[in-house]
Amino acid sequence: MLTLFHHPICPHSRFVRLVLEEYGWTAKLVEERVWERRTEFLMLNPAGTTPVLVEEGALAVPGAGVIAEYLDEARGATVTERRLLPAEQGARVEVRRLMSWFNDKFFGEVSGPLVTERVYKRHMPAAAGGGAPDTETLRAAKSNIKYHLAYIGWLVRKRDWLAGDNLTYADLGDVPWDKDETAKSWYARIKSRPSFRGLLAEALPGLAPSKTYADLDF
Amino acid sequence: MLTLFHHPICPHSRFVRLVLEEYGWTAKLVEERVWERRTEFLMLNPAGTTPVLVEEGALAVPGAGVIAEYLDEARGATVTERRLLPAEQGARVEVRRLMSWFNDKFFGEVSGPLVTERVYKRHMPAAAGGGAPDTETLRAAKSNIKYHLAYIGWLVRKRDWLAGDNLTYADLGDVPWDKDETAKSWYARIKSRPSFRGLLAEALPGLAPSKTYADLDF
Repeated sequence: MLTLFHHPICPHSRFVRLVLEEYGWTAKLVEERVWERRTEFLMLNPAGTTPVLVEEGALAVPGAGVIAEYLDEARGATVTERRLLPAEQGARVEVRRLMSWFNDKFFGEVSGPLVTERVYKRHMPAAAGGGAPDTETLRAAKSNIKYHLAYIGWLVRKRDWLAGDNLTYADLGDVPWDKDETAKSWYARIKSRPSFRGLLAEALPGLAPSKTYADLDF
Repeated sequence: MLTLFHHPICPHSRFVRLVLEEYGWTAKLVEERVWERRTEFLMLNPAGTTPVLVEEGALAVPGAGVIAEYLDEARGATVTERRLLPAEQGARVEVRRLMSWFNDKFFGEVSGPLVTERVYKRHMPAAAGGGAPDTETLRAAKSNIKYHLAYIGWLVRKRDWLAGDNLTYADLGDVPWDKDETAKSWYARIKSRPSFRGLLAEALPGLAPSKTYADLDF
């Protein structure tokens, strides 16, 4: 049995949910409000961040990248024909490079600041850093989107999927690509996958469903 | 033949250099001033960051975490008795969790801002964001060090090495622990390893050798 401690708006949590959906593995979802810093959650992940995947009360696996590696090693052999981390050395480097691009770089420059400013800070008490969004941070994050879009557009002009010929972890970064012309056909294919349906339809308290990431004004 | 594009002060580059030293693998070092955004370097790593490890003009592997996974998969079998990523599932999760702690979290909250403000910005042209260090950013980074020290101190009270019974990737984060009482004995062992000698002795232009990370005033 898998349990995923997540937040509906956390890009790293959404990445892991897409991965689980792609593989057809069910996890019990537990919503974690990380800003509350629950002791039990900090014991699972001292970093205090979502997501954390727990295997049957035994092993706690924290963080998008660590979870991706863990799932591939622990369960990947059962899904050889649609494995999200390919076997060949060069392909593995490319998938990991792009996983890191979305989970570290894009998150640091765009999706992390947007989610913090627009959603988390609304729920956080002032003493923990809550309050109105910082407009300067929002402006920078929105501006950073442009070169990410340009880069993804460039990749998908050369490839069927972001890392090569097949769907991999690299395609499951939760990013709003619908506004980019060159990325459109790839994104349409990604969005049409059953794994994306649940997340795209989800309504978040205080946010219109499809607006969560879509109203980025870029 | 391995070539490592690095910067002497880049924490991620230093992590990879320590890993290579631990394994006894020689790499040709090429210093990369990432702020110059050399076209040839951007072709190796579109993210424009150090380190990048190149295998004999063939495969370019960018980023500390991706390099660590690559080296383990491509060459780990030759070093079974002192492998830096252990074989057992739970231990792998723990090593990866702590690798991410240093390379992502500590880097994001402490060492990245310190290096950017104190070193990189000194070399960067004003148009690229260069100039005087931002004192507010420096203050926040220095303040963040405290809870990292507390956490590492807590870990090494329970363990011989950060991730468990043996030296792993988790121990090779390039972090100044000498000022923390509880972390001292572990750090003394780490510093005494031959792999650390070169880095600790290195003089950087404009910075006193051991002061690079040591004068953090915490």
